[in-house]
Amino acid sequence: MKTPEQYRESLREMRPNVHKFGELIKDVTSHPATSRVVSGHAQIYAAQHDPQYQDIVTKMSSFSGERVSRYLTLIESMEDMWANSRMKRLMFNLTGTCTGGRCVGWNSTNAMWATTWEIDKERGTKYHENLKSWLVDAQKRDISVCGALTDPKGNRTLPPHKQKDPDMNLHVVEANDKGLVVRGAKVQIAGAAASHEIFVLPGSGYKAEDTSYSVSFVTPKDAKGITIVEARHPSDMRDFEDGWDNPVKCGGITQGYVFFEDVFVPKERVFMNGEWEWTMKNIMSFITPYRSAIGGCVAGQGDLMVGASALLARANGLNEKVFSDKLNKMTINNETTFAVGIAAAARGKMHPSGVWTCDPLLANVNKIHVATLPYETKRLAQEIGGGIAETGCMPSWKDLESPEYGELVKKYMKANSSAETRVKLARLIEWLTLGSGVPGTMHGGGSPDGAGMVIRANSDLEEKIKSVRRLIQIDEEIKVEK
Amino acid sequence: MKTPEQYRESLREMRPNVHKFGELIKDVTSHPATSRVVSGHAQIYAAQHDPQYQDIVTKMSSFSGERVSRYLTLIESMEDMWANSRMKRLMFNLTGTCTGGRCVGWNSTNAMWATTWEIDKERGTKYHENLKSWLVDAQKRDISVCGALTDPKGNRTLPPHKQKDPDMNLHVVEANDKGLVVRGAKVQIAGAAASHEIFVLPGSGYKAEDTSYSVSFVTPKDAKGITIVEARHPSDMRDFEDGWDNPVKCGGITQGYVFFEDVFVPKERVFMNGEWEWTMKNIMSFITPYRSAIGGCVAGQGDLMVGASALLARANGLNEKVFSDKLNKMTINNETTFAVGIAAAARGKMHPSGVWTCDPLLANVNKIHVATLPYETKRLAQEIGGGIAETGCMPSWKDLESPEYGELVKKYMKANSSAETRVKLARLIEWLTLGSGVPGTMHGGGSPDGAGMVIRANSDLEEKIKSVRRLIQIDEEIKVEK
Amino acid sequence: MKTPEQYRESLREMRPNVHKFGELIKDVTSHPATSRVVSGHAQIYAAQHDPQYQDIVTKMSSFSGERVSRYLTLIESMEDMWANSRMKRLMFNLTGTCTGGRCVGWNSTNAMWATTWEIDKERGTKYHENLKSWLVDAQKRDISVCGALTDPKGNRTLPPHKQKDPDMNLHVVEANDKGLVVRGAKVQIAGAAASHEIFVLPGSGYKAEDTSYSVSFVTPKDAKGITIVEARHPSDMRDFEDGWDNPVKCGGITQGYVFFEDVFVPKERVFMNGEWEWTMKNIMSFITPYRSAIGGCVAGQGDLMVGASALLARANGLNEKVFSDKLNKMTINNETTFAVGIAAAARGKMHPSGVWTCDPLLANVNKIHVATLPYETKRLAQEIGGGIAETGCMPSWKDLESPEYGELVKKYMKANSSAETRVKLARLIEWLTLGSGVPGTMHGGGSPDGAGMVIRANSDLEEKIKSVRRLIQIDEEIKVEK
Amino acid sequence: MKTPEQYRESLREMRPNVHKFGELIKDVTSHPATSRVVSGHAQIYAAQHDPQYQDIVTKMSSFSGERVSRYLTLIESMEDMWANSRMKRLMFNLTGTCTGGRCVGWNSTNAMWATTWEIDKERGTKYHENLKSWLVDAQKRDISVCGALTDPKGNRTLPPHKQKDPDMNLHVVEANDKGLVVRGAKVQIAGAAASHEIFVLPGSGYKAEDTSYSVSFVTPKDAKGITIVEARHPSDMRDFEDGWDNPVKCGGITQGYVFFEDVFVPKERVFMNGEWEWTMKNIMSFITPYRSAIGGCVAGQGDLMVGASALLARANGLNEKVFSDKLNKMTINNETTFAVGIAAAARGKMHPSGVWTCDPLLANVNKIHVATLPYETKRLAQEIGGGIAETGCMPSWKDLESPEYGELVKKYMKANSSAETRVKLARLIEWLTLGSGVPGTMHGGGSPDGAGMVIRANSDLEEKIKSVRRLIQIDEEIKVEK
Repeated sequence: MKTPEQYRESLREMRPNVHKFGELIKDVTSHPATSRVVSGHAQIYAAQHDPQYQDIVTKMSSFSGERVSRYLTLIESMEDMWANSRMKRLMFNLTGTCTGGRCVGWNSTNAMWATTWEIDKERGTKYHENLKSWLVDAQKRDISVCGALTDPKGNRTLPPHKQKDPDMNLHVVEANDKGLVVRGAKVQIAGAAASHEIFVLPGSGYKAEDTSYSVSFVTPKDAKGITIVEARHPSDMRDFEDGWDNPVKCGGITQGYVFFEDVFVPKERVFMNGEWEWTMKNIMSFITPYRSAIGGCVAGQGDLMVGASALLARANGLNEKVFSDKLNKMTINNETTFAVGIAAAARGKMHPSGVWTCDPLLANVNKIHVATLPYETKRLAQEIGGGIAETGCMPSWKDLESPEYGELVKKYMKANSSAETRVKLARLIEWLTLGSGVPGTMHGGGSPDGAGMVIRANSDLEEKIKSVRRLIQIDEEIKVEK
Repeated sequence: MKTPEQYRESLREMRPNVHKFGELIKDVTSHPATSRVVSGHAQIYAAQHDPQYQDIVTKMSSFSGERVSRYLTLIESMEDMWANSRMKRLMFNLTGTCTGGRCVGWNSTNAMWATTWEIDKERGTKYHENLKSWLVDAQKRDISVCGALTDPKGNRTLPPHKQKDPDMNLHVVEANDKGLVVRGAKVQIAGAAASHEIFVLPGSGYKAEDTSYSVSFVTPKDAKGITIVEARHPSDMRDFEDGWDNPVKCGGITQGYVFFEDVFVPKERVFMNGEWEWTMKNIMSFITPYRSAIGGCVAGQGDLMVGASALLARANGLNEKVFSDKLNKMTINNETTFAVGIAAAARGKMHPSGVWTCDPLLANVNKIHVATLPYETKRLAQEIGGGIAETGCMPSWKDLESPEYGELVKKYMKANSSAETRVKLARLIEWLTLGSGVPGTMHGGGSPDGAGMVIRANSDLEEKIKSVRRLIQIDEEIKVEK
Repeated sequence: MKTPEQYRESLREMRPNVHKFGELIKDVTSHPATSRVVSGHAQIYAAQHDPQYQDIVTKMSSFSGERVSRYLTLIESMEDMWANSRMKRLMFNLTGTCTGGRCVGWNSTNAMWATTWEIDKERGTKYHENLKSWLVDAQKRDISVCGALTDPKGNRTLPPHKQKDPDMNLHVVEANDKGLVVRGAKVQIAGAAASHEIFVLPGSGYKAEDTSYSVSFVTPKDAKGITIVEARHPSDMRDFEDGWDNPVKCGGITQGYVFFEDVFVPKERVFMNGEWEWTMKNIMSFITPYRSAIGGCVAGQGDLMVGASALLARANGLNEKVFSDKLNKMTINNETTFAVGIAAAARGKMHPSGVWTCDPLLANVNKIHVATLPYETKRLAQEIGGGIAETGCMPSWKDLESPEYGELVKKYMKANSSAETRVKLARLIEWLTLGSGVPGTMHGGGSPDGAGMVIRANSDLEEKIKSVRRLIQIDEEIKVEK
Repeated sequence: MKTPEQYRESLREMRPNVHKFGELIKDVTSHPATSRVVSGHAQIYAAQHDPQYQDIVTKMSSFSGERVSRYLTLIESMEDMWANSRMKRLMFNLTGTCTGGRCVGWNSTNAMWATTWEIDKERGTKYHENLKSWLVDAQKRDISVCGALTDPKGNRTLPPHKQKDPDMNLHVVEANDKGLVVRGAKVQIAGAAASHEIFVLPGSGYKAEDTSYSVSFVTPKDAKGITIVEARHPSDMRDFEDGWDNPVKCGGITQGYVFFEDVFVPKERVFMNGEWEWTMKNIMSFITPYRSAIGGCVAGQGDLMVGASALLARANGLNEKVFSDKLNKMTINNETTFAVGIAAAARGKMHPSGVWTCDPLLANVNKIHVATLPYETKRLAQEIGGGIAETGCMPSWKDLESPEYGELVKKYMKANSSAETRVKLARLIEWLTLGSGVPGTMHGGGSPDGAGMVIRANSDLEEKIKSVRRLIQIDEEIKVEK
């Protein structure tokens, strides 16, 4: 398993193709726009070698029997799925935010593990073998693999083939003996800048007309024809500043727009090519564990909000017990998203290919929680922290350091702690609630309304009606207009 | 294992000591005040023999290796604890409400299993053996055992020994070679009328001054000196009426006030006598699984609300899809309380005595959910069902049957179904949300504010502060006034 | 203005036609099923003569210049509309529940005041004159007039003329020189039992095909052909009992199903007959002030929940300050529904006929609040009050009075107050939250979803989009599929 | 009344003393850190001359009879207070955010109008005359006056004189014939950069020991000894960029830290000096109208969120009707904060000095709403807008304009509108929910917990208990421990 330095080195060896603010980033490990996301992911590589965390972030490979990064393993049991939630919570605790440059690829791998197994079984293809070979090798190389699901989609009411611009969803433009050529884009790809490879899956359930859009593969991030533009995020110019106005140096998340301009994919890295019949099921295989475990992310970040707001209360001169109902509400929110994910795994079952599947109803219930509860948690962090936490309404680090009037600022920013400590804590709350630490958990992995549709489909309404009929003995048939 | 009829027969053989409305109930199995609670519990006895349910409501005894009622077993694993949640959800589905005359005794047995093991280990007592002997025998007799935790308590700010009236908490008034004599009361005891025995535990954590209050035992319900008065509940006079204004015949719950006037308990049925040091821990052993699994109860009743409101919408002429967001919200509430309980078990661990313990943080988070989410679910059931469901605002069954004007009532109560069906469904929603089907899940097993205290104690605030300090590198010590 | 005794006497003089539980009620003033609703309304008659309340419940008639019941006046200004909210809040404070036997008729009168003015103006009819004559006379007689809007409606997706049974909405079956003959029903009519007359309006907006359903009039409650069956409500059998299990003697509400079997209405009491073009607007004229002022009702009942739960906390031995956040939340809920009603009046305007109209957007926002906030208030009352308040889980009054074991019950029901006081308070919370004191404010005057449609129609979305376009300078036209 | 250009010119004439990012801002009207806040306030000056808005933003002076800025008038009636709410809503519509550089000073003036009247009456001072003279003159000069209430406060549990550093609250350090010398700071002062003068009031209720802290006055912003450092806010570096990543050019808000280093205040500009007995009442006079009208601000910004999210839905290809329940919820939130403010004014009364006072209970209920409801509104705006709106997760303007890959970005950002339109709308939602448009309405003018205390004090608990006692006839006295 790589060390953090080996990880950084390996990133530096790649062709630079990540951009932000109109410019090419020559070295993602040192450029301020990407150094934090790399540092966050580097912490995973460090944790692999740290006895305190090793059991969470690594696992014995069922291929090699060696200890490998958990992000490159199969989720083979309920316990593995729990480890997913726990690892996510841990990484948010350690980095303050998302390390999606490994976990989404992991999730994609597991989804496609089941899908390729099914396709091969029915169609006699070799996708599953391809995937296995790649994975065995990836374990050896200990690479970071981001996952790329979301297409630009264009007009949301039209399927891919009805879009004016056929590239609004990624598709195969050529296929030959050696492999495929693909065109399109995948957008909002977490941690692309910190990854070595990109795992691509179809972004929706498709119909026969969208055969060419039904494609899955893995590609080096720096393959020819791939251009990445990182999205900007709130307050991201602070990443370029000295001082603590972005107080988190050891973590950060980026969301890349990955453009594929006729990118070649060798056939042994292809996991689906045209089998649209599996795209909907594959989406479910992707989102179900994803929406289960994302509660760990939200809980992990919420833990920091609890800690930061309580400590800032103290810095303001107040015992945090004054806020104990509010802190409890935050804790309840955190634990709820974590727990529903644990339960979704517990109520899951084994797929014949050997990966564990979570309960779709509970997974999607959790998606709704993840899209709502953190907002209340953030609000409470701002409420407990006071006016300076609410919007980070304080002079900048440069002002505190001003030779002219910095002393004035420090004099009046102090309270029951130094100005520095108080300001840093308030900046952390700003970063977590209004700044670049805010992850996109509401729409990431699909919208709450999409989750609602899955809930409806899995809520067994007719079974519940049957219970009612039995309980109070109603036999009358009741028909309604569709 | 008993059949429903054997169960009923065994209840009829007991000394009548249950009262309601100022009168002694001679036969609890047929008296309208108690026949529903007996019918509800009888369904458990029926399910034991029903292949469809047997695996949920029974288990192989680890004492005898025989199949016995799950309510008389130890909870020996995470899976057993999950079965607890599932069984509760099932029984609410089948009876419409609580069957607490078995589950609380079960919960008490398991709590005292751990407590007696610890006391014996440290004090050399024989409580654990007493408990085991009783339990082995109880399995054979297949009895229903209610659990009795809650004392009247008097003035809530005073401990037992400071109360003006020393009997406000149940206590030992005499102890001798043969056993104990106890005085006091246990109140709001679910399903006492449907039970054979009563399992008594201390109602709070006590100090040395309250030694005589630290007592646990099991007693036949009809022991000399025990008088039971059943609480009335909303709309309970309908239990005495013909027709469907209480539309549920096969279930119902009662809450008994159990008075102990110098009741003798033979020593082999005593499980604690004076060991106040264990009372607080025992309370935790009681409430933790209780608060985990109660999410199953709430979910099970919520299932019926989903079914009833959707079916009533159809009876009103509306496709329930009009209400799909509301039905989804109900489902989310149901599944959340269920899931957090599953997770509390999943995050639990084994007690050295051999019973599984749940995670106290998640268990108490669930208690808060159980005290809030069902209120929203009820509101939504009333909203979907319409005006007749909101408060059951319809003529009575007698009016529908009136020879004089019943036809008029029926004419105008019909919609997209017969009047009868529509009215029954609305009455069911009334029963579930404002009537005698409403279980006391908010305060049952302790108040939400009590749960809040456990959450606070288990929320690891200092650990979270430590993560924050590490993340943004703050070393300054910050002290605040207590 | 009548005294309470004159009011009762006048009710006794009417033909008995109110039924409940299959029986005719001979004297509504003394029969236990209706005596409470009469007592509640009698308090209005008492308040008219009480200097403390006179300015709220009476007003100088703009017809006669005499002091008359406010319930028989026009709402001629913003201040009159505020008095509406305040009077409702007061009456809930005094009676514990709704006195809809006067306020809905009042609301109907004012709606039809505007509607008849408009119809007459355009059609040359004499409806407005009819209404005025009747109202002048009603002021003199100081009668209680209930309002009857809601039709049985049958299948909710079909208009009146498409129903299999044409009587599912009230309609004219014959019209001649002397007047009309009507058939159908009006249901869930608040306080019908306590009223002298019934003010009937069309229940929905109708189209040309439903001309005969577009009818409004006022009729003596005991007119030939009118049969009233009172709906049962939660725990209503307690109205027939001695003691305090229904602790409120001086108030209560009933909801009558009023059946019209070919009832004759003399032409001078007809206010609309076939003018379907005004039915939708009339509905709006009805619901707008209704939904504004109903916030006063909800606040008035919420006041009692605040008082009862705080006092019960004390009776339990707890200083209510322990619950101050919860009490504050209850207060916020109460004041919000009250305030939004005040604002709806403040943002209203004068109708050319001389009655004040409220802002439809705010009125319907309040309807949503009224359908949600009280549920939280009730939950909190139950939480503060403790287990005995949650479901009224206590022995009955008969048990407390039992010569055999009543002392035992009393001994254990006492706390920091006598058993009697504590039980009465808990019974009041039960009555308010799960019992016959619960008014139907969620669906009364229309459903929340109906309110949502009015909100949408009045939310000026295009205006808001225009502000956005201006703010960030967007000119591009954007079209979407309907 | 000034024109926008005269306003800008007058600001340019002042001594530069506003800083940000460690630097002095030479011209606040053109420097990117402050030009937006000046533009926002300039829109008020424009509106004064615009027939469409004139009646809202101006009023006839009761001193001169001339039309003057409403921000420089007395609030002499309920209608004036309503105009306050409406003007705030309008200005948020026009500028996207707060124009606190006028409204807080206005609020301060009105509070001190009542306070000076009372002090003068009892103490024979001349404060009221001072205030009037200044105000008459201010009307003529048509100046912008920010209000400065909040002190740095230091340790929140200690009063001013107990702080280690006595300057943590602003205080008088010298008083003589000519005036006062003051030292300390006022922090988070909205719109200081856009103002001509600063109106200072005591920040809390003080006791006798804090006499020297009980001081109120008005001072030119550029008085000798005043140094202003503007707080940074989320994403504020975008203010320095070209393009639309901050899409709002015509509005913006700043929050200044205003340091007073021995600033001289001539005696005729002093409105309080040592009269600590009035400080608490003055705080109430300040916060009551402030907390009433702030609902207009929140509603005005919420209007834009409704418009922006609906329009972005269309740009995404979706009819906004898909989101109609969510849009309705946003509207309900907006209208509720607006309405409760209107009601607080309606339920107010006249102060003998001639200014209208609002109802303190409703005003503080609104403060709680303002601290909670907008968070849900923001969440919903992000939900409707989709992933790009949630965190502004899109390439920057520079990337869209990149000659190298800008076309790629535009190709994939387009949907049912051009990329530009879609991105701008998403950036607006980011700006409103996570960016520099977020106003500090939760803590601005005091914390929600502070509002809770006022609610408690004004909730008339004993009166409500009295109603309960009367309703169910309870006479027993019940005492509890404090």
